[in-house]
Amino acid sequence: MKLWQKNIASLKEVENFTVGKDRELDLYLAPFDVLGSLAHIQMLQTINLLTTEELVVLQKGLKEIYKDIQSGKFKLDEDVEDIHSQVEMMLTKKFGDTGKKIHSARSRNDQVLVDLKLYMRHEIEMLVHDVKEFFTLLLQQSEKYKTYLLPGYTHLQLAMPSSFGLWFGAYAESLADDMITLQAAYEVVNKNPLGSAAGFGSSFPINRKLTTQLLGFEDLNYNVVYAQMSRGKTERIVAQALANIGATLSRLSMDACLYLNQNFDFISFPAELTTGSSIMPHKKNPDVFELIRAHCNRIQALPNEIMLMAANLPSGYHRDLQLLKEHLIPAFENLRNCISMATLMIKNIEIRKDILLDKKYKYLFSVEEMNKLVLQGTPLRDAYKKIGMDIENNNFQYNLQLNHTHEGSIGNLQNDAIEKMMNKVLSRFNFNKVNEALQKLLE
Amino acid sequence: MKLWQKNIASLKEVENFTVGKDRELDLYLAPFDVLGSLAHIQMLQTINLLTTEELVVLQKGLKEIYKDIQSGKFKLDEDVEDIHSQVEMMLTKKFGDTGKKIHSARSRNDQVLVDLKLYMRHEIEMLVHDVKEFFTLLLQQSEKYKTYLLPGYTHLQLAMPSSFGLWFGAYAESLADDMITLQAAYEVVNKNPLGSAAGFGSSFPINRKLTTQLLGFEDLNYNVVYAQMSRGKTERIVAQALANIGATLSRLSMDACLYLNQNFDFISFPAELTTGSSIMPHKKNPDVFELIRAHCNRIQALPNEIMLMAANLPSGYHRDLQLLKEHLIPAFENLRNCISMATLMIKNIEIRKDILLDKKYKYLFSVEEMNKLVLQGTPLRDAYKKIGMDIENNNFQYNLQLNHTHEGSIGNLQNDAIEKMMNKVLSRFNFNKVNEALQKLLE
Amino acid sequence: MKLWQKNIASLKEVENFTVGKDRELDLYLAPFDVLGSLAHIQMLQTINLLTTEELVVLQKGLKEIYKDIQSGKFKLDEDVEDIHSQVEMMLTKKFGDTGKKIHSARSRNDQVLVDLKLYMRHEIEMLVHDVKEFFTLLLQQSEKYKTYLLPGYTHLQLAMPSSFGLWFGAYAESLADDMITLQAAYEVVNKNPLGSAAGFGSSFPINRKLTTQLLGFEDLNYNVVYAQMSRGKTERIVAQALANIGATLSRLSMDACLYLNQNFDFISFPAELTTGSSIMPHKKNPDVFELIRAHCNRIQALPNEIMLMAANLPSGYHRDLQLLKEHLIPAFENLRNCISMATLMIKNIEIRKDILLDKKYKYLFSVEEMNKLVLQGTPLRDAYKKIGMDIENNNFQYNLQLNHTHEGSIGNLQNDAIEKMMNKVLSRFNFNKVNEALQKLLE
Amino acid sequence: MKLWQKNIASLKEVENFTVGKDRELDLYLAPFDVLGSLAHIQMLQTINLLTTEELVVLQKGLKEIYKDIQSGKFKLDEDVEDIHSQVEMMLTKKFGDTGKKIHSARSRNDQVLVDLKLYMRHEIEMLVHDVKEFFTLLLQQSEKYKTYLLPGYTHLQLAMPSSFGLWFGAYAESLADDMITLQAAYEVVNKNPLGSAAGFGSSFPINRKLTTQLLGFEDLNYNVVYAQMSRGKTERIVAQALANIGATLSRLSMDACLYLNQNFDFISFPAELTTGSSIMPHKKNPDVFELIRAHCNRIQALPNEIMLMAANLPSGYHRDLQLLKEHLIPAFENLRNCISMATLMIKNIEIRKDILLDKKYKYLFSVEEMNKLVLQGTPLRDAYKKIGMDIENNNFQYNLQLNHTHEGSIGNLQNDAIEKMMNKVLSRFNFNKVNEALQKLLE
Repeated sequence: MKLWQKNIASLKEVENFTVGKDRELDLYLAPFDVLGSLAHIQMLQTINLLTTEELVVLQKGLKEIYKDIQSGKFKLDEDVEDIHSQVEMMLTKKFGDTGKKIHSARSRNDQVLVDLKLYMRHEIEMLVHDVKEFFTLLLQQSEKYKTYLLPGYTHLQLAMPSSFGLWFGAYAESLADDMITLQAAYEVVNKNPLGSAAGFGSSFPINRKLTTQLLGFEDLNYNVVYAQMSRGKTERIVAQALANIGATLSRLSMDACLYLNQNFDFISFPAELTTGSSIMPHKKNPDVFELIRAHCNRIQALPNEIMLMAANLPSGYHRDLQLLKEHLIPAFENLRNCISMATLMIKNIEIRKDILLDKKYKYLFSVEEMNKLVLQGTPLRDAYKKIGMDIENNNFQYNLQLNHTHEGSIGNLQNDAIEKMMNKVLSRFNFNKVNEALQKLLE
Repeated sequence: MKLWQKNIASLKEVENFTVGKDRELDLYLAPFDVLGSLAHIQMLQTINLLTTEELVVLQKGLKEIYKDIQSGKFKLDEDVEDIHSQVEMMLTKKFGDTGKKIHSARSRNDQVLVDLKLYMRHEIEMLVHDVKEFFTLLLQQSEKYKTYLLPGYTHLQLAMPSSFGLWFGAYAESLADDMITLQAAYEVVNKNPLGSAAGFGSSFPINRKLTTQLLGFEDLNYNVVYAQMSRGKTERIVAQALANIGATLSRLSMDACLYLNQNFDFISFPAELTTGSSIMPHKKNPDVFELIRAHCNRIQALPNEIMLMAANLPSGYHRDLQLLKEHLIPAFENLRNCISMATLMIKNIEIRKDILLDKKYKYLFSVEEMNKLVLQGTPLRDAYKKIGMDIENNNFQYNLQLNHTHEGSIGNLQNDAIEKMMNKVLSRFNFNKVNEALQKLLE
Repeated sequence: MKLWQKNIASLKEVENFTVGKDRELDLYLAPFDVLGSLAHIQMLQTINLLTTEELVVLQKGLKEIYKDIQSGKFKLDEDVEDIHSQVEMMLTKKFGDTGKKIHSARSRNDQVLVDLKLYMRHEIEMLVHDVKEFFTLLLQQSEKYKTYLLPGYTHLQLAMPSSFGLWFGAYAESLADDMITLQAAYEVVNKNPLGSAAGFGSSFPINRKLTTQLLGFEDLNYNVVYAQMSRGKTERIVAQALANIGATLSRLSMDACLYLNQNFDFISFPAELTTGSSIMPHKKNPDVFELIRAHCNRIQALPNEIMLMAANLPSGYHRDLQLLKEHLIPAFENLRNCISMATLMIKNIEIRKDILLDKKYKYLFSVEEMNKLVLQGTPLRDAYKKIGMDIENNNFQYNLQLNHTHEGSIGNLQNDAIEKMMNKVLSRFNFNKVNEALQKLLE
Repeated sequence: MKLWQKNIASLKEVENFTVGKDRELDLYLAPFDVLGSLAHIQMLQTINLLTTEELVVLQKGLKEIYKDIQSGKFKLDEDVEDIHSQVEMMLTKKFGDTGKKIHSARSRNDQVLVDLKLYMRHEIEMLVHDVKEFFTLLLQQSEKYKTYLLPGYTHLQLAMPSSFGLWFGAYAESLADDMITLQAAYEVVNKNPLGSAAGFGSSFPINRKLTTQLLGFEDLNYNVVYAQMSRGKTERIVAQALANIGATLSRLSMDACLYLNQNFDFISFPAELTTGSSIMPHKKNPDVFELIRAHCNRIQALPNEIMLMAANLPSGYHRDLQLLKEHLIPAFENLRNCISMATLMIKNIEIRKDILLDKKYKYLFSVEEMNKLVLQGTPLRDAYKKIGMDIENNNFQYNLQLNHTHEGSIGNLQNDAIEKMMNKVLSRFNFNKVNEALQKLLE
C-alpha cells in the first residue's frame, strides 16, 4: 500500500515496475531515515506542530526502530513501497494518528533527499577510513622497499631506473590527491535539504537551521528549488570522487598484473592469493587485481551513467532520479571491497631483489652516466657524445649506485611530506562533529 | 626538426601523424612554457648549473619571447615540433649553446607537465571570474523577480507555486556548489611537477621547492612517479569540475527552452537574441540556449573521454596522454563562451507577470490551502478531506498571496546566505599569490 | 571447491571476492551450458574421445539437468564456483569419471564463451518478439489516430501541424531501424567460439564445424585468438543495439511526459496507470514513462561501461571480462520490462481530439497557407509577403483541413511500407533454424 | 546574412556563437549539398514546380559549383551562414529569382539531413576501402608468419603456445565482424530523408521516391517525423560502428606496444617508424601505435558523447543536433588516418624468430604434453599426474613442434574462410549502384 494513495489502486504491473528494487535498496537508507525523522520531530515541537508528549512518544518509537535496524531485525513489509512508509506505518500501528505526525511539514521528496545525503555522508566516512589504512600501508611498503630498484618505462620502453620506494609512494600520493576531490564531494553532500518539501517549500514556519544543526550538517541547501535540483547532481559529484579513487586502484592493478607477468617478473604473491594449477606451476593468475581493475573501471563509468540519466531533464523532481540509488549504492560497496582486497594484496606482496643486476637493463643507466659527466663539468654536448660512443663501442660502464637527492626522487622519497599532505586534507572532514550530533539525537 | 633527434629522420607520414595538432595547440601553452623556463633557470643558477651571466642573458631572451607571445607575434615554425623546441631554438639562435641550457636537468616530460598545470591554473582563474559574474547576475534577477510566481512542476506535472526568485536563485546556488569542485580541481592542479624529469627524477641536485615558490604553486607533486601519473588524472579532475558547471548551465538552458515554448509562455527574449521569421511571428527560436545545452552536454562527456583514453595504461608516460590537450583546451574555451552567452541571455530575459492568475493553475494551491487549515489547528486528516471535497464540489477557493517564511522559500530566498556561501568558496582560491609570483618572474 | 584447483586453497576473502555474483548470474547461463555440453560430447564421440556408451549416459544426465533447470529446481551448491563446475559435479556424482569427460578437449574459457553466445542469441530472440509486438501496436495506433492533429515543434517552438498518426508511426519506423543494428549484433553473436580452448586452440582433433551445426550457429569464430577476443566485443556490440532500442523508448517517454503535462495536455492515461492524489486531482504522474526513460538512458550508458572495462587490455583472457555479465544480463531484463510497460501504456493512451482548434495554435498554419498560394501559382516572394501582411493586419485566415499527399506525410503515412521494412529486417533472423537445432539436441 | 532572416538582425555575439564552426565544417558537406539539390530540382520539374528551362539553367549552375568544389576553389563567404545559403546565393547572383527555386518545397532541415546522409554514406565507402586494404595485409602477414610462435597469455600469465599467424589473423577476423556493424550503419544511413521539410512534411505534391532513386538511396525514411528523428540517431549508430573498428585497432596497438617492450621483445620496427635517441639505443618508442590507441579510444567515446548531447530531447528539431557534426566529421578523418598508419606499421613489422626456444617459456608446453598423453590413451587423471610429477622432478620434456589441426588453430588458420566471411559482408554494400546514380546526376 502506498501512503499517498487515496482512491485508485495502481495496476499490479505498474506497481511492480515502479517499486522496482526500492524495497531492497531502501534498507541501506533505513537508519538515516530514522535519524532524519528524529531531527524533524524535535524541530516540529519547537514550532508547536507537535506537543512535548507527542515528541517523547515518537522519539521512543523511532529509537526502537533504529535499534532494530542496527541489530538486523528490521525489514520492509511485502506491501510497503518504501522506507518512509514502513517507518510511518510502524509508528502508526503503535501510536495511532500521532505516528502520522512525523510526516507533518514534510514531503517524501525532501525525506528521501535527506536520507540520501546522510547515507552518502556516512559512506564517505567509511571510505575515508579504508583509504587511510591503505595509504598508510603503501607508505610503509615504500619505506621498506626503498632500495629495491626496478626499470622505469616511458612508452612502455626501458627508460631510467626507478624503485619500489617510488612505486608504492606514487600510489599513496595519488590517494592524497583523490581525497581532495572526495572532500569536495563531502562538502557538497554535507548540506541540509530537509524542509524543501516537494522542491518548492511550504507555508509551515519550519526552522531549517535547527534541523541542520541537529543532523550535524555544515550548512543548508538554502534555495528549495536548488535543494531538489541537488538530486542527481550530488550523486554525480560523489561518483566522480569515487571514480578518482577507482582510477588510482585500477592503474595500480594494471601495474601489478604487468609486474607479475613472467616477462617482467618483478613481484610475486603467496599462492593462496592467486589462482593456478600444478601442471602450470608458473601460473599465478592475479584474479584479484583483475577484478579490482574491472570493478574500478566500472566505477569510472558511473558518473557518465548518472549524467545520461539526468541529462536534459528540466528542473523539478522526476521519478528518473529514483533509479540512481540502484547504481550508486553498490558502487560504494564495490569500491570499499576493492580497497580492502588491494590492502590484502599489497600487504602480502613479494618484491624481487636485484632486478637491475640483469645486463639487459644496462641502458637504463645511460642518462645517469651522462648526467654524472655533466655534473662533473663536462659540457652536455661532449658528455652526450662520449656516452654515445661508449655504447657504440660496447664500452659502456655504469654504476648501480644512484645518487638522486632532490625532493621526491629515489633517494629522497618525501614520504613524510606526502603523509602531511594527506593529513591536511583529512583534517578538513568533520566526522567528529557529525557523529556527536547524531549521537545526541539517539541518546 | 626534433631536438631529441640524433641520427634517423622519421618518415614524413610518421612525423605528420605524431605531431598532429600539437603545433596549433601548443600556442595555448606558449606563455606558460616561458614562465616555467624562467623559474627553472633561476633555480639552475642557485645550484651552479648556470652562471649568473648566463641566467641574465636567458632571462632577457625569455622575457622578449613572452612579450611576443602576449602581442600575438609569436608562432611555431613549420619544421618545429612543439613549443619547447621552438623556445629553445629561438634562444639558441640568439645565444648559441647557452640557449640550450634552459633544458638542463629537465625533460620534455616535466616541461609539458608544468606547462599544462600553469595553463589549467590560469584558465580556472578566468573561469572563476566569469562564473562569479554570472552568479551575481542570477542573484540580482532573483531579487528583481522575487514576487513573480510560476508553476512548480514535479514529474512535469503541476505541483505547487514557485517563483522566479526561486528559479534564478537555484541556479546561483548550484554554481556555488560547482565552485567547490572547481576549487578542489584547482588544488590538485596547483602542485609543482617540475623536476620529475621523465617521471623518475635525476641525479641533478635541483631545488624543487624553489621552483614551486617561484611559480606560485601551493605545494609539490612530490613523488616523481606520481608527478608523471598526474598527467591524465589532473585533466580528468578538471574536466569533472567543468562538467559540473556544464550540467548547471545545461539544465538552465533546458528550463529556458521549455519556458519559452508557447504552451508554457513564461519568459521571452528580445528578437535579436533569438531567431525567427516574419510569417511565423510566434517563433522565437532559442538557438543560443540550445547551443549552450549542447556544448555543455558535450563538456559533460569530456571526463569519460579522458578516462577511456587513459584507462588501463600502466604507470609511466605514454604518448596517448599528449592527445588529451586536443579535447581539454577547447572545453575551457567553449565553457567560457557558454557562460558569456548565458549571461547575455539572462540579462535580457523578459518575465511574464501574473502567470498564476490563469485559472488552469488553480490546483497548484490545493496543498497550500490544506496546509493553512493545518496551521490553523485542523487535523491533517480533516483538512485533507475538506480540500478534497471542495475540489470535488467545485468549491475550491484559493489565495494567490503566499506566506512562505522558512529559509530558502519563496518569501525568504536567503540570497545573501547563498552569496556568502559562494564567497567562502572563492576565498580559498589564491589567485593573488599566484599572480604576484608570476609577476615577479617577469619583472 | 574449484575444479581446477589442485593443491592450495584460496583465502576465503579471495574466494568470496573472485566468485562475486557469479553463482547468481550463472543461473541465467545454466540451460545454455547444458546445450553447449550436449553438442560438445556428441562431437567428442565422433572423434573417439568418448565411446558411444559414454555418450548415451552423459546425454541422459545432461537432459535431466536441463529439465531441472526448466522447472526451476536447479541451483548452484554453496561451495561451487560456477555453472560449469556444478554441471560437471552433478554428472560425476552420478557417473563417476565419465562425468568428467564432458570437459575433455575444452577449457572453461571456451565453455563460458559459448554459453554467453547462446544466452545472448536467446535473449535477442525474446527481445525481437517483444519489439515486434510493440511495433505492431504503434502502427495500429498510428492508423487509429491518423486524423488527430497536434502541434509540431522545432526548437520546442510551434512550427507546423503534425498528427498522432505521424507521432506513433515515427516510433514504429524508429524501431525498424533499431532492428537493423540488433540484427547485426545477432549476426556477430551467432558464430561458434567453441573449440578455442583457452584462446589458443589445442592438439585435440576436434570438429568445430560439427558443433557449429549442432548448436545452430551460422558460422564459426574461426581464429581461436579472435574467438577469445570476441569476449567483451560481442557484449559491446549487443549493448550498442540495446542502447539504440533504449534511445527510441527514452525519446518516446520524454514526449509522453511532455504531452501529459497540463500546459500541453495532448494525451492522458487511465488513473490506474499513473500516480496522483485526490487533493491534486490534476496530477497524473507518469512514473512509468519516467522510469522507462531512466532505465533506457541507463542502458544507453552500458556500451560505454563495457568499453571502459575492456579498454586497453591486451589480447588474451583477463578476469575483468567475467564482470561484464553483471551489467549485460540485467540490461536485457530491464529493456524487456520497459518494452512491456511501454506497450501497456500506449495501448491505453487517450488522445485529445481537436487540439488545433485552439486559436493559440493558428500560426502553425502560416506556412501551410503560403504553400497553398505558391501551389496556386503565386510566386514565393509574393506569397510570403501576403501572408506576412495578413498576419500583421490580423487578417490571417487558415484552414484546418490539410492536404499533405507525399510519402510519409500526414495524409499518406506509408505505414504499410514501414511494416514491410520491418518484416524485411526480421526475416534475416533465423530463429527457426536455431530452435530446430537446439530441439534436436534435446530430443 | 541569413536567408531566412527578414526583419531583425541578430546581435553579433549571437551570430558568432550560433554559427560556430559551421562554415568550416560545411565545406565537408558542400559536394553533397549540390548533389541533393540536383536530385531535388529534377524532381521539382516533374511536378511542375520548375520549368524545363529553369531546370536546365539550375543544373548547369550546380554542376559548375560542383566542379569548383572538387577543384578546391569553392568556399563560404564571410557573411554566409551555411552551405545551403552559399549555394543558393551563388545561383541567385547568376540567375536571379530562378536561383531561389532550388529551395522550393524544401526546408533547411531536410536539406542538411540529406547532406549528412550523403556525406556519411560516402565516408563509409572510403572507410570500407581502407579497412579492406588493412584486412588483406593482416591476412598476408598471418600467412607469412604462420610458423612463428609466441607465448599465449591468459591473465597476462604465460599459458599456451600461440603464433603470429594466429595473432595477425585474429585482427583480420575482428575487422570482418566490425564490418557487420558498419554495414548495418550503412543501411540505416542509406535511406532518403529528403522531403520531410521541417520534420512535418508539406502540402507540396513532391515525389520522394524519385529523389530516392536519383540519389541512389536504397529506401526512404518514410515517416517525416521519423526522418527528422533520425538526426542524432544516425550519427550515433555510425559512431558505434566507428567505435567498433576503433576498438580493434586500439587493442592491436596495445599488443604492439607490449610486444615491442624489451621484456617481451617479440617484434620490432625500422628506426624511421619509431622515435628514440642514440644514447638510449634500446629505445624504440612506438609513438604511432600509442597515438592510434589514443585516437581510437577517443572514437570509442564518441557514441556516448552523441548520446549525452541528444539524451532526453523531445522529438522535433533542436539546434543541439547541429553540433554533432563537429565531433563526427573529425572522427572519420582520424579513424582513416589511424588505419593508414596501422597499415604502414604492420607492413614494416619485424617478427623475432624462435622466441619460444628460450627455456623460460617451457611450461607453455605442459598442457600440450598432457594432451598428447591423453590422445595416446592415457586417462586424463594419470596424464595430469605424470606431467605434474615431471615438472616437480625437473624432468619435464617438451617438443616445440605443435600438431594443432582443428579449424582456426595454429596449424589450420582458416584464413581463406575469414576472407570469404569478409567478402560476404562487403558484398552487401551497394557502392556501385550508389556511384552510378550520382554519376548520372552529374552528367
